[in-house]
Amino acid sequence: MPKSLDVVAIGNAIVDVIARVDDDFLKTQAVERGAMTLIDADRGEALYAAMPPGVEVSGGSAGNTAAGLAALGGRAGYVGKVRDDVLGKVFRHDITAQGVRFETAPALDGPPTARCLVLVTPDAQRSMNTYLGACVNLTPDDVDPAMIGDAQVVYLEGYLWDPPKAKEAFLKAARIAHESGGKVALSLSDPFCVDRHRAEFQELVRHHVDILFANEHEIVSLFEARSFDEAMQKVRFEVETAALTRSERGSVVVHRDEVHVLDAEPAERVIDTTGAGDLYAAGFLHGYTRGRDAATCGQLGSLCAAEIISHIGARPEADLKKLVAARFG
Amino acid sequence: MPKSLDVVAIGNAIVDVIARVDDDFLKTQAVERGAMTLIDADRGEALYAAMPPGVEVSGGSAGNTAAGLAALGGRAGYVGKVRDDVLGKVFRHDITAQGVRFETAPALDGPPTARCLVLVTPDAQRSMNTYLGACVNLTPDDVDPAMIGDAQVVYLEGYLWDPPKAKEAFLKAARIAHESGGKVALSLSDPFCVDRHRAEFQELVRHHVDILFANEHEIVSLFEARSFDEAMQKVRFEVETAALTRSERGSVVVHRDEVHVLDAEPAERVIDTTGAGDLYAAGFLHGYTRGRDAATCGQLGSLCAAEIISHIGARPEADLKKLVAARFG
Repeated sequence: MPKSLDVVAIGNAIVDVIARVDDDFLKTQAVERGAMTLIDADRGEALYAAMPPGVEVSGGSAGNTAAGLAALGGRAGYVGKVRDDVLGKVFRHDITAQGVRFETAPALDGPPTARCLVLVTPDAQRSMNTYLGACVNLTPDDVDPAMIGDAQVVYLEGYLWDPPKAKEAFLKAARIAHESGGKVALSLSDPFCVDRHRAEFQELVRHHVDILFANEHEIVSLFEARSFDEAMQKVRFEVETAALTRSERGSVVVHRDEVHVLDAEPAERVIDTTGAGDLYAAGFLHGYTRGRDAATCGQLGSLCAAEIISHIGARPEADLKKLVAARFG
Repeated sequence: MPKSLDVVAIGNAIVDVIARVDDDFLKTQAVERGAMTLIDADRGEALYAAMPPGVEVSGGSAGNTAAGLAALGGRAGYVGKVRDDVLGKVFRHDITAQGVRFETAPALDGPPTARCLVLVTPDAQRSMNTYLGACVNLTPDDVDPAMIGDAQVVYLEGYLWDPPKAKEAFLKAARIAHESGGKVALSLSDPFCVDRHRAEFQELVRHHVDILFANEHEIVSLFEARSFDEAMQKVRFEVETAALTRSERGSVVVHRDEVHVLDAEPAERVIDTTGAGDLYAAGFLHGYTRGRDAATCGQLGSLCAAEIISHIGARPEADLKKLVAARFG
């Protein structure tokens, strides 16, 4: 029976608060440059108070990917935990208005909806400070077997390994996906996240993942390799498909016996790199679920990543369908 | 029976005349920027007269590779045609002083030893203007079957397709190499050279070549591909080993089922890119004939290329053996 969804993404449901700062601000506030740092509620309050005026946009790595897929015309679902508060409603509005199926019940008590204070420096680099809030309450009960079984691909973000119970939700989803003939995709999310969970990620990649997304730093960290090439040689034996991104150096896509070395999409401007990996995954999976060849999947990823870094925020602004049609017909 | 030579290189025996010029000079003299252009004796005289003071150094693509191999401690031979004139003696002195076996008899009449007027612009790019001179007299008779049969690898430069009879010399050498259990390597030399001889190069690559060296522009031109990746997919089915160089973006080495994506060696400075491809081939073949794995061969190539671009001229100045020992033990 054909599946009615292309991709279900599972992730931390987060509202981003984005502000432009200079490098001094990062130093003064002791923010780890270029990384995603987990912060508690108190640190979140203090950092937010010190921040310049920002814009609030729905985010979360897998949420961005789901939104990107929907923008491309794909049929996307999302699983993630918000609280029944104002930011939770904002998150739900934005992702469903983009056309993503999002049915996870909000938490009625406990911590508020997660937020990420995103500090963008003049070099377009983003430093992220995440208060996980309600995300810690995502559990296996939030994974609807019918929805997962009805998707070609289940996609999860590595960040899900940070809250305590979310990984169980993912493993349940992975099992259901495989039982129903679907594929399991994982994004490694962040080299620090890989450091925190390396052994579990290695086990996961080897035994549960069909499609792996990682940037150069993440894949090198996963295998504790000395070079990109060494990590790439290892990943070829671990997963069926791997899309390894290298910023302006393009990406390398490994698919069964194939290896594709792809150029980056020339970016007209680079304003904010938040979401580049998320949208690469969206473009790639859009091609994948449409049966495009591996090289085209990678090129679709690059095209979407180039759009997202050309403006503030990690949800697409341009008409991705038109961009794709102009390039790939 | 073990072979007594690692590599015999066959090429156009050329003395380089190198001078630094600005971009205006290239325009005024109608020199094709970044390319190797064949010129006749009259054009050579006129261009030489207009050039600022230069330095004369022995060159020739395959000659540079042979010299690089000898500098690395490899056992290298060379086949190429000079005239019995002053520049011919310079060429012979330099390559034999480097430790390369060079026994090709000089031409006793006909055009003088070949020279290449190399114009280096401030961006370290070199534009080459080659008067082939005595090179046009290289014939199959210059190929000594005993020497070829005694080499692990016969290496030729694509530029050999420019003089009329040299290609016959190469095909003879390729046949002898294969009959005696050796490998045949080819460098595509130059995208314009590929344009001139595409059909012959395609046939050669498919039927006679085991190890192919090409830069991005050359391999794309060979297959008239739309992208580097498309060309790379094709070359995987054509040769056993391909080393594809991409300047500061590193190189991709394809060897049987393996694909390696290698970073460029960080260059301390870039003064003159003449010989970068030749020395990459030298480093690669040095590793290859020592039984190193494909990724290490590519890294050896990058290391030697980084040395050669750090100074004027295409023959090594630093102690390549020490550089290699420091890195690879």
